[in-house]
Amino acid sequence: MQDRCIALFREVQDTICSGLERADGGAPFREDLWDRPGGGGGRSRVLVDGGIFEKAGVNFSEVHGELDPAFAGEMPGDGPTFHATGISLVLHPASPRIPSVHANFRRIERGSAAWFGGGADLTPYIPCDDDARHFHRTLKAVCDRHGHDRYPDYKAHCDRYFHLPHRGEMRGVGGIFFDGLGGDPEAELAFVADAARSFLDTYLPIVERHRDEPSTERERRFQLLRRGRYAEFNLLYDRGTRFGLKTAGRVESILISMPPLARWEYDFRPEPGSDEAAVIAMLQPRDWAS
Amino acid sequence: MQDRCIALFREVQDTICSGLERADGGAPFREDLWDRPGGGGGRSRVLVDGGIFEKAGVNFSEVHGELDPAFAGEMPGDGPTFHATGISLVLHPASPRIPSVHANFRRIERGSAAWFGGGADLTPYIPCDDDARHFHRTLKAVCDRHGHDRYPDYKAHCDRYFHLPHRGEMRGVGGIFFDGLGGDPEAELAFVADAARSFLDTYLPIVERHRDEPSTERERRFQLLRRGRYAEFNLLYDRGTRFGLKTAGRVESILISMPPLARWEYDFRPEPGSDEAAVIAMLQPRDWAS
Repeated sequence: MQDRCIALFREVQDTICSGLERADGGAPFREDLWDRPGGGGGRSRVLVDGGIFEKAGVNFSEVHGELDPAFAGEMPGDGPTFHATGISLVLHPASPRIPSVHANFRRIERGSAAWFGGGADLTPYIPCDDDARHFHRTLKAVCDRHGHDRYPDYKAHCDRYFHLPHRGEMRGVGGIFFDGLGGDPEAELAFVADAARSFLDTYLPIVERHRDEPSTERERRFQLLRRGRYAEFNLLYDRGTRFGLKTAGRVESILISMPPLARWEYDFRPEPGSDEAAVIAMLQPRDWAS
Repeated sequence: MQDRCIALFREVQDTICSGLERADGGAPFREDLWDRPGGGGGRSRVLVDGGIFEKAGVNFSEVHGELDPAFAGEMPGDGPTFHATGISLVLHPASPRIPSVHANFRRIERGSAAWFGGGADLTPYIPCDDDARHFHRTLKAVCDRHGHDRYPDYKAHCDRYFHLPHRGEMRGVGGIFFDGLGGDPEAELAFVADAARSFLDTYLPIVERHRDEPSTERERRFQLLRRGRYAEFNLLYDRGTRFGLKTAGRVESILISMPPLARWEYDFRPEPGSDEAAVIAMLQPRDWAS
């Protein structure tokens, strides 16, 4: 199962990078291979200042070794050794007309336990309901192929997880998030493989819809402000980021998710009725799929 | 003692804001008065897009009430109620030739215990040893007026505190940091008052030195990258920020410290022998005062 997952995630990284490079048209991915001192390593790919993407990071990793005792208590399973393999990506388009997106899919093994986790979430900078609808409906279709409980469950989990309590808002319009899928390994692998292989379908049509739209300075400014919130989420709350940094992971691969440029403005308040106010109104749990 | 500290910190906020406005010459401070639902409140002042400062935030606050049980265990003293008053400031100049600076001074009371804390640290973007020397020597002179143990002790504490373990570097060139000063209240108040009133002397001469120097696009880019590290420190490690956000403090006043614009670049490595490499070499503990 471990080997099949490694092969799956490598394949998905290749397919996603090829698809993104084709869509971008302006710059190739650069690849860095790295070893983890404690065991394993990864293949980080990043595309910078492309035709569409200001920064696109797509990581594959396969790491194993001894768990940090400080974190062992927070993880399911037993014993000191673990094995984890997965893919994670964050795409920050240059144009504020195109949303940022994050996805990751992983399998973790610890002692006698093994489980899948992952998800995908969308962060728009303009109020376009159709984007949120397309993203959620595509994810729901994938989930439904593997059981009708999945989408409502993972959608609600995503709404809870990608949430900034100090701001009282979500990072974006959500998507799906799941963890601890430890049931029938074949069924879970089939679901995760389907979700990972569907990523481009959830996102590229949104890119196509907006890629030729002109954007304004005001939209750019608001995008940078929202990217500040993205940075806040990653550094204050994201479990993967905090876990990685506190366990001496490869810093550049962990922080590949950070926005290329972000802005903080004291006490920003959108004008009532403005596009900015409409985007912020989208950052609450909502039924986007039906 | 409480009332005298409140009066001191209000006075210092006024003096510092006047001095900064005069130096800036381009924009005034805007003031927001706010109440804390649990008790107390504050006076936040921010200057944006001025002649020197891209963003300057200077907060006074005086808050009291019941401690969050989750944090009560981490604090000295006894009992559920606390009183805290202080001033904190972060200045982000527009020009990369001028360093960013942070300072804060506070007094906290909990049950039968009361103590002072605070400090100041400097974050340069160009390699100018004279700036670090001036900053440290001025702080040392202040400390020495109140006992010769203070500077070495507080300087070392600052080097440890303003440190990004995941980067293996300090946020800047340090300064002083102290906490738990619970000895003779009159002597400690005299020290804190002297340090707070000396802030402009530690920093404004550095502003004057560089204010008319032209800067390059490359320096600006590096400044934004270093401001990304500043954001990392604030959100990942700064105890004040994390404490404030987790205890439902006033978000805009807490995050006033965030840089107005910050950049993240994948796997940035300075060219050997470059100014960027020289700045990064400064981000390790060093004796700047002698």
